[in-house]
Amino acid sequence: MLKHHVREMLQKRVGGQNYLDAPEDLICYSYDATLSETRPEAVLLPESTAQVSEIMKIADRESIPVTARGAGTNLSGGSIPQNKGIVLAFTRMNRILEISKKNRLAVVQPGVVNGHLQVELSRQGLFYPPDPGSLNVSTLGGNVAENASGLKGAKYGVTRDYLLGLTVVLADGRIIKTGGRTVKNVTGMDLTSLFCGAEGALGIITEITLKLIPQPEAQRSIQASFADLDAAGHTVTHIISSGILPVALELMDSTTINLIEDYTRFGLPRDAAGLLLIMVDGAKESLGRQVDRIKAICREQGAERIKVANSPEENDALWEARRNQFAVMTRARPTCIVEDMTVPISDLPAMILAIRKIAEKYDLLIACTAHAGDGNLHPHFLTDKSDPEEWRRVKAAEAEIVNKAAELGGALSGEHGIGMAKTEYMDLFLHRDSRRIMGEIKKVLDPKGILNPGKWL
Amino acid sequence: MLKHHVREMLQKRVGGQNYLDAPEDLICYSYDATLSETRPEAVLLPESTAQVSEIMKIADRESIPVTARGAGTNLSGGSIPQNKGIVLAFTRMNRILEISKKNRLAVVQPGVVNGHLQVELSRQGLFYPPDPGSLNVSTLGGNVAENASGLKGAKYGVTRDYLLGLTVVLADGRIIKTGGRTVKNVTGMDLTSLFCGAEGALGIITEITLKLIPQPEAQRSIQASFADLDAAGHTVTHIISSGILPVALELMDSTTINLIEDYTRFGLPRDAAGLLLIMVDGAKESLGRQVDRIKAICREQGAERIKVANSPEENDALWEARRNQFAVMTRARPTCIVEDMTVPISDLPAMILAIRKIAEKYDLLIACTAHAGDGNLHPHFLTDKSDPEEWRRVKAAEAEIVNKAAELGGALSGEHGIGMAKTEYMDLFLHRDSRRIMGEIKKVLDPKGILNPGKWL
Ligand SMILES: Cc1cc2nc3c(=O)[nH]c(=O)nc-3n(C[C@H](O)[C@H](O)[C@H](O)COP(=O)(O)OP(=O)(O)OC[C@H]3O[C@@H](n4cnc5c(N)ncnc54)[C@H](O)[C@@H]3O)c2cc1C
Ligand SMILES: Cc1cc2nc3c(=O)[nH]c(=O)nc-3n(C[C@H](O)[C@H](O)[C@H](O)COP(=O)(O)OP(=O)(O)OC[C@H]3O[C@@H](n4cnc5c(N)ncnc54)[C@H](O)[C@@H]3O)c2cc1C
Repeated sequence: MLKHHVREMLQKRVGGQNYLDAPEDLICYSYDATLSETRPEAVLLPESTAQVSEIMKIADRESIPVTARGAGTNLSGGSIPQNKGIVLAFTRMNRILEISKKNRLAVVQPGVVNGHLQVELSRQGLFYPPDPGSLNVSTLGGNVAENASGLKGAKYGVTRDYLLGLTVVLADGRIIKTGGRTVKNVTGMDLTSLFCGAEGALGIITEITLKLIPQPEAQRSIQASFADLDAAGHTVTHIISSGILPVALELMDSTTINLIEDYTRFGLPRDAAGLLLIMVDGAKESLGRQVDRIKAICREQGAERIKVANSPEENDALWEARRNQFAVMTRARPTCIVEDMTVPISDLPAMILAIRKIAEKYDLLIACTAHAGDGNLHPHFLTDKSDPEEWRRVKAAEAEIVNKAAELGGALSGEHGIGMAKTEYMDLFLHRDSRRIMGEIKKVLDPKGILNPGKWL
Repeated sequence: MLKHHVREMLQKRVGGQNYLDAPEDLICYSYDATLSETRPEAVLLPESTAQVSEIMKIADRESIPVTARGAGTNLSGGSIPQNKGIVLAFTRMNRILEISKKNRLAVVQPGVVNGHLQVELSRQGLFYPPDPGSLNVSTLGGNVAENASGLKGAKYGVTRDYLLGLTVVLADGRIIKTGGRTVKNVTGMDLTSLFCGAEGALGIITEITLKLIPQPEAQRSIQASFADLDAAGHTVTHIISSGILPVALELMDSTTINLIEDYTRFGLPRDAAGLLLIMVDGAKESLGRQVDRIKAICREQGAERIKVANSPEENDALWEARRNQFAVMTRARPTCIVEDMTVPISDLPAMILAIRKIAEKYDLLIACTAHAGDGNLHPHFLTDKSDPEEWRRVKAAEAEIVNKAAELGGALSGEHGIGMAKTEYMDLFLHRDSRRIMGEIKKVLDPKGILNPGKWL
């Protein structure tokens, strides 16, 4: 519990009903989508930038740790209040402040759920591409702080690519605005990008201006199954090299396929060793050609069955099946650990092969999936943390997989962040001098270290 | 001249022939595309990251200012060695190190000329969109350091959007790598974006990994002339709102049209008050529809003549005429000052109107052009710096125009950078606290202040 006078001050700032510290409340804000858990001392539900600023002034004066929280769906321990203190939850700051078709932008509060914005935008023919699997729950504040991406990264990039500007409350309560309302802006350093992906450790984001694009005219999806997972991997490289840029290019192994089928009965081919789900979009007349080209490449690479979604409903169902991927994985065994490395696209087959060999070597169940079009792999360890012997093998296998990604010139995390979950591997991917610079930038913005402490930084 | 022992050390590092300090050499490296000029004490032409690192170690030890230089085409005084010292010119580091179709990326040295890369890429069906007007001369190192953009910003964004990773030599000679080879990468803070647009004040970029996209299948251009410049401005907003995202959407006023015609005789309509040049791209079957839609909008908004380029040659000629814009402006009167503010797209008509009124008020010739599709205006003051009375009016008018852009929520510079040219207006656009943070980040990376000193930072 926070000291009495601090509690009183904070309650006065946000209103008594927006200050939670009953044990049952604290438990709700103690975890995210990882396996860790730490109870905060208080949960605050601010309603404005000004309130956040007031809270941070107090936290700064009293040196109280502050961890921002969107929906708590992150997979790296990012929103766990590791050093206790305050959780700032953005549930009440969930308004879409502006959608401008003329200026191709939206201004939102950080608590707006990604999927809600998507629905509003599609009514107006507008499009905000980043769509993490969690889009129906996760918030845009959390998306910005993690630089989230999703299925459409291959063609449409990541959250950072759609940021025009931010309002940020600094560790000491000062309020700054970064960027602006235009795509081009070189007035000073790019602080917007710096706060994006910083996992709440450099400042609290209280307003977000997003760049929008027009909704693509049409889309079409293809499903291609392979008797050989390697062949599926090679097909990805061939599609990318062909000059087609699919919106999504997802790869699943047979474990994944069968788990999805167990729970959704969508009709995925249970006997396939590898499956590609491919989405193309663009002018409606161009889709047939794109689909034909992709079908031809899949066939050349030995696809056994190729199925094209024939209606918007079939298309939606296919991607719904894919979206369930993480949920079904978590049901397979008591513990599911999802990795998130990237490798250059042409190294996908090598990486997939390595993962399979490592799974065999350690006798583990690793379901392998990938946002293959952008080289982002999600091997899922389906395991049981309560079995110490198996857990040891998991950790050894994880280290080997991560080392392989480093060897291939990949990244430790493509979209899930580092948080607490991946700290131990940072040195494999980041040079000591880079980390030192990041540490010094952290000190510039948060000299007392009160913002989301206990994480990798 | 540098001290004798420093000169000797540096000569040993780069080789005598790559160390220039004859007056005629120093003059060549004393200016850029602005009006200022300062002679460096020595010009070094390094050939590798290792050499740059060696040079920086010496400069750090001896506290010698170092200004990086690409082609010296920037419009903000960025590559002028304001505090003398060393100019590091990247003429010899001009190799394309890798073009990978499979991984959709290119790795280049900073001295590669933008246009040279474009030619290589187009041979392979690949595309790197940022195309500053200076593309046949300006270097990718300079483009990254300025976060340059160009005609295609409306649809394809800016240099930063295509950066996957950098090799950077820090002020003290340490070498770091930022980012990597994949689109998704959240392993630590985004240092890549931080160095982009930093105008050589945070580190020396010695290698650049660029994201590529497939070449669009086809493109088509339209030219629409208006009897009223305002109507042209409003047409831009209507096109953007319509859900079409043109590659380029350029606006010119009658002064610009007539200057281009004087020198190129391309056949632009001399009697028009405003001209829009519009390029669309995409699947070939979609172009007709896009063109028809844009023609209809132009007609509704009162366009007098609409001309569609009927062949690739006509298309190229049209954009060649546009590319000459800056060159012809500089011929009109002794001095040409090009401004570079942005405003939200829907405020373009208001901004254009304001510029016209200010030109009248101060009795000045201001040719107004804009990358209108992304709200980036380039009013050109056609004037004579040697006339003190006229120059006073220019400065007063400039201040009013810049203030208007600030009032409309625009940016001081869209793509040309701040350098020395725009320092005086920074406070209108950047909050004191933001500037302070930038200053502190500068100190983290360049504690002695030897990197490109004397500029806005
Ligand atoms: C089923 C499932 C599928 C997923 N699929 C994807 C996917 O496809 N792609 C992907 O990228 N991720 C995915 N994720 C991970 C997760 O959804 C994303 O990281 C998401 O961006 C987190 O958003 P959130 O609102 O839940 O934020 P939280 O988890 O609450 O917070 C995430 C981080 O952001 C910080 N933060 C939150 N709000 C703010 C703020 N206003 N200011 C500053 N910092 C803040 C927190 O402190 C924390 O460090 C998935 C997760 C699940 C459970
Ligand atoms: C006719 C004309 C048209 C133009 N059109 C456009 C346009 O459409 N869009 C646009 O954005 N700009 C335009 N510009 C401006 C200019 O071309 C760009 O700013 C360009 O990016 C500068 O590249 P450069 O190689 O000439 O760099 P320089 O002018 O030599 O340097 C620019 C800045 O980058 C720094 N720098 C250079 N190399 C490095 C390095 N390796 N590491 C660190 N810092 C470095 C320098 O110190 C300096 O601060 C135009 C200029 C002209 C003259």
